[in-house]
Amino acid sequence: MEVGFLGLGIMGKAMSINLLRHGFKVTVWNRTLSKCDELVEHGASIGETPAAVVKKCKYTIAMLSDPSAALSVIFDKDGVLEQISNGKGYIDMSTVDDDTSLKISEAIKAKGGDFLEAPVSGSKKPAEDGQLVILAAGDKALYDEVLPAFDVLGKKSFYLGEVGNGAKMKLVVNMIMGSVMNAFSEGLTLAEKSGLNPGTLLDVLDLGAISNAMFKLKGPTMLKNSYSPAFPLKHQQKDMRLALALGDENSVSMPVAAAANEAFKKARSLGLGDFDFSAVHETLKALDHST
Amino acid sequence: MEVGFLGLGIMGKAMSINLLRHGFKVTVWNRTLSKCDELVEHGASIGETPAAVVKKCKYTIAMLSDPSAALSVIFDKDGVLEQISNGKGYIDMSTVDDDTSLKISEAIKAKGGDFLEAPVSGSKKPAEDGQLVILAAGDKALYDEVLPAFDVLGKKSFYLGEVGNGAKMKLVVNMIMGSVMNAFSEGLTLAEKSGLNPGTLLDVLDLGAISNAMFKLKGPTMLKNSYSPAFPLKHQQKDMRLALALGDENSVSMPVAAAANEAFKKARSLGLGDFDFSAVHETLKALDHST
Amino acid sequence: MEVGFLGLGIMGKAMSINLLRHGFKVTVWNRTLSKCDELVEHGASIGETPAAVVKKCKYTIAMLSDPSAALSVIFDKDGVLEQISNGKGYIDMSTVDDDTSLKISEAIKAKGGDFLEAPVSGSKKPAEDGQLVILAAGDKALYDEVLPAFDVLGKKSFYLGEVGNGAKMKLVVNMIMGSVMNAFSEGLTLAEKSGLNPGTLLDVLDLGAISNAMFKLKGPTMLKNSYSPAFPLKHQQKDMRLALALGDENSVSMPVAAAANEAFKKARSLGLGDFDFSAVHETLKALDHST
Amino acid sequence: MEVGFLGLGIMGKAMSINLLRHGFKVTVWNRTLSKCDELVEHGASIGETPAAVVKKCKYTIAMLSDPSAALSVIFDKDGVLEQISNGKGYIDMSTVDDDTSLKISEAIKAKGGDFLEAPVSGSKKPAEDGQLVILAAGDKALYDEVLPAFDVLGKKSFYLGEVGNGAKMKLVVNMIMGSVMNAFSEGLTLAEKSGLNPGTLLDVLDLGAISNAMFKLKGPTMLKNSYSPAFPLKHQQKDMRLALALGDENSVSMPVAAAANEAFKKARSLGLGDFDFSAVHETLKALDHST
Repeated sequence: MEVGFLGLGIMGKAMSINLLRHGFKVTVWNRTLSKCDELVEHGASIGETPAAVVKKCKYTIAMLSDPSAALSVIFDKDGVLEQISNGKGYIDMSTVDDDTSLKISEAIKAKGGDFLEAPVSGSKKPAEDGQLVILAAGDKALYDEVLPAFDVLGKKSFYLGEVGNGAKMKLVVNMIMGSVMNAFSEGLTLAEKSGLNPGTLLDVLDLGAISNAMFKLKGPTMLKNSYSPAFPLKHQQKDMRLALALGDENSVSMPVAAAANEAFKKARSLGLGDFDFSAVHETLKALDHST
Repeated sequence: MEVGFLGLGIMGKAMSINLLRHGFKVTVWNRTLSKCDELVEHGASIGETPAAVVKKCKYTIAMLSDPSAALSVIFDKDGVLEQISNGKGYIDMSTVDDDTSLKISEAIKAKGGDFLEAPVSGSKKPAEDGQLVILAAGDKALYDEVLPAFDVLGKKSFYLGEVGNGAKMKLVVNMIMGSVMNAFSEGLTLAEKSGLNPGTLLDVLDLGAISNAMFKLKGPTMLKNSYSPAFPLKHQQKDMRLALALGDENSVSMPVAAAANEAFKKARSLGLGDFDFSAVHETLKALDHST
Repeated sequence: MEVGFLGLGIMGKAMSINLLRHGFKVTVWNRTLSKCDELVEHGASIGETPAAVVKKCKYTIAMLSDPSAALSVIFDKDGVLEQISNGKGYIDMSTVDDDTSLKISEAIKAKGGDFLEAPVSGSKKPAEDGQLVILAAGDKALYDEVLPAFDVLGKKSFYLGEVGNGAKMKLVVNMIMGSVMNAFSEGLTLAEKSGLNPGTLLDVLDLGAISNAMFKLKGPTMLKNSYSPAFPLKHQQKDMRLALALGDENSVSMPVAAAANEAFKKARSLGLGDFDFSAVHETLKALDHST
Repeated sequence: MEVGFLGLGIMGKAMSINLLRHGFKVTVWNRTLSKCDELVEHGASIGETPAAVVKKCKYTIAMLSDPSAALSVIFDKDGVLEQISNGKGYIDMSTVDDDTSLKISEAIKAKGGDFLEAPVSGSKKPAEDGQLVILAAGDKALYDEVLPAFDVLGKKSFYLGEVGNGAKMKLVVNMIMGSVMNAFSEGLTLAEKSGLNPGTLLDVLDLGAISNAMFKLKGPTMLKNSYSPAFPLKHQQKDMRLALALGDENSVSMPVAAAANEAFKKARSLGLGDFDFSAVHETLKALDHST
């Protein structure tokens, strides 16, 4: 199977290498073309422009850093739109918002192409190991056709229906995660202030019904007040805001997520936006002379 | 090793059988003495009264239904106090409040005995399988001496320091669990109202960093609006209230737990107190003609 | 002093009559021109189009129903832009959002005109009585020039600096009001459920430090579950959402407003969006068989 | 009319002088008897002990500093119980909790006496001016008999039914006040951070539907970060906790009060418990380098 691949950042590089390892023919493009060289060593071809990649390949996957990058490979000169056409599929795996996804979808379809949004859950390591979770939405036929690629890239892929559902699903998952992080942080703080050993709380939690990987990973670093950013707090707060906005549109009252969102905002007001989202833990700290 | 065992309810029966299977000599007592017969078949001796059990055994474990039962085996006629003395240890594994635990501790120690509170996490099945988690606090020497029994009864035991810390640890864990349940319920509701398949959300969550046994167990039943009580909502809410009170004493502000507590109170006001604590899910339901 | 007046709805009619009574020469325009007749009886002239009004008058005031109406009198054929020019001032007293206000401001200024946004606090009765509160922002010189008109229309006007500040000030005031309404509703409910007479609570509140007109007006109707809409709940909730968004932009954590907002959303989910904002009271009602 | 008066602190002294001025015969007692001298100048008689006062007077009013003082004038040697009897009435106007009130009530009634709890709203100045608000509960006949005294002491008295309702009414009022304070503080902070003048917000609020004495009194000092204690924050938070507990007993979910309570707890954790309750404003302050 032959695919194009646009974007060779941390994620895109790992994903395209993975495809090559599993026997896919891959034609890569990156804004800084020199980044393609390593991929050539792994067997990739190079496309000079997004348009050139799309011209050559029936399916093109994109993994770009943000909405503006995602839009510019489509709409700029030598962009995807110049070559997309009936019978070709475009799969955007970047994490973008609803609106960006819809804009791209409409442009592609107006030219006769097929479109999938397919944001992923998981970062560098799962990308290298083919252990991503893929949240795809859009053309079902295209989804079925590119499933072999998804099977290589992820441990599991979901087809979620119409374009926009991929982004929404990510928001819901991240909202739950943000509330759970606050629940966890409050418990750690309560344990500590009540004279219990918070490290022991971690051990007890780990043996119970809500034991999970995040507690295991973040608990020990939170107790050391160490918050090097895996998922920046300001992004977590943005996702909670967007999830609450989604709830607003649909008349869903979510008091716990709203309280968690305010805690993340408090953390931002303390200058913690660029730290890991577990830094919300700092908002619960007291002064020594509390009454 | 020889131990006394007071209380042969669902938990106590499973635990004493477990001890017998592992070669402990066990002398049992139960308020309704006929319940002891099955234990005799497994090799137990019978003590006619709590006092008789304590007289015979160096160590006596109690597993009683509530604070009043826990107090009456101590203070009533033919109770533990009549025979407890220097060199004897009493281990109360019932779930009782802080104050009850302290009252028992003081009475035992006034007579020269040693005391442990040791509430457990886990219900019937883990009790039968020796998979409880034991949260012990009190006399450390006694803890070390009865560790062989704890090793049989639980997959793990913790020594948490002074009497009261066992009860506190349970509150902290249950508070986190209550907030996490609300986070989960809000996410399921948001998914459903936003046009996503909440069953798919369960699948996505199960592949991610906060995947946990509670989501797996409760998610499918919550989506069926089925809340047969494993842990009654009114007890969950009581634990959250007590955890918030513990925070109050120690100047710990916990906005997410407070919001979750109000949701559980809302559920009680809807008549859901005797259902499973996952019935908090019902508080998020909308009428059909929402605006 | 001569002014143009665009829009003769409930508010605009009361305001322009008020101006006529105080000796202003007023040229009125309304989309449905027949509505101008009553004003003519009070001494007004008629302008055939917004452009005609602006051509005739140095100052033109607009009081339109919503952002789209506010935009169309500006940008449509025969609109304000065709005649606005150096030396003419345009004062938009409609309640519109920040962005609409800025768009209008830019268009007016590009033609050389001066601009004020001037949303008001107060409805029909204060408009008739000249008792509005005017929250003006934009060109300070224009503000000073039209002060005689503001003095007639309102009991007090404020100059708040740059365009956008008028809208923001309204959001902040409405956010406080929405939280206060929830505080009030919770207190009424607690009184009733605790066996106190909520009517007596109203009397006690009325004698204390937080006695205010809203409690006096809304308390008795809330106790009768009567919520005929003075300020629709869905608009109150929208203002709280926008105020929270303003807080989000400025890193202000507002946990009480966030909780109040979720209560209003809950009310919307119960189908109460078109009732008075005091209908949030219904979200606190319990079923009879609560536990 | 002749009354006894126990307790000549700031409140009790002002109240008994007030009674004397209005022609009541008053027999006073105070733990430090020398404090009675000033009252003698105003025409009071002295009772050597609480028992002596009750023996002499048909009605005895108490205004004591706290529950333990309120209990000791009843139960100690030479206390009220030694002389209370059929046909005598005891009115406790101290601010005490429910339980203390009930304990006193039962003891008085067991001796055949009549009892009213009658906590007041208002401090020194209203006490001197006879402008207190009196929240009475207990024996209705006694209430009717002592109404002439209440008319002198307060601008308004309420009869609220059974003993305990006076204390409950105070909690509900203080809960509303605490939530309103948070709503106000959030608004002031949002105004300031959004580039509005918070002083102008005070002016705008003062012209609107929620204008109230507390905003007028506390707003200017809060903007100066000045929180000299009129009502200490730790007492406000205690009242919110008790009001939430009252809600818990009665299955009333109060998410806004709960969020406000957590903000007050946060303030306590910052060492602000002894400052005025308006110091909750400090919890919203950001660091300069917020993101």
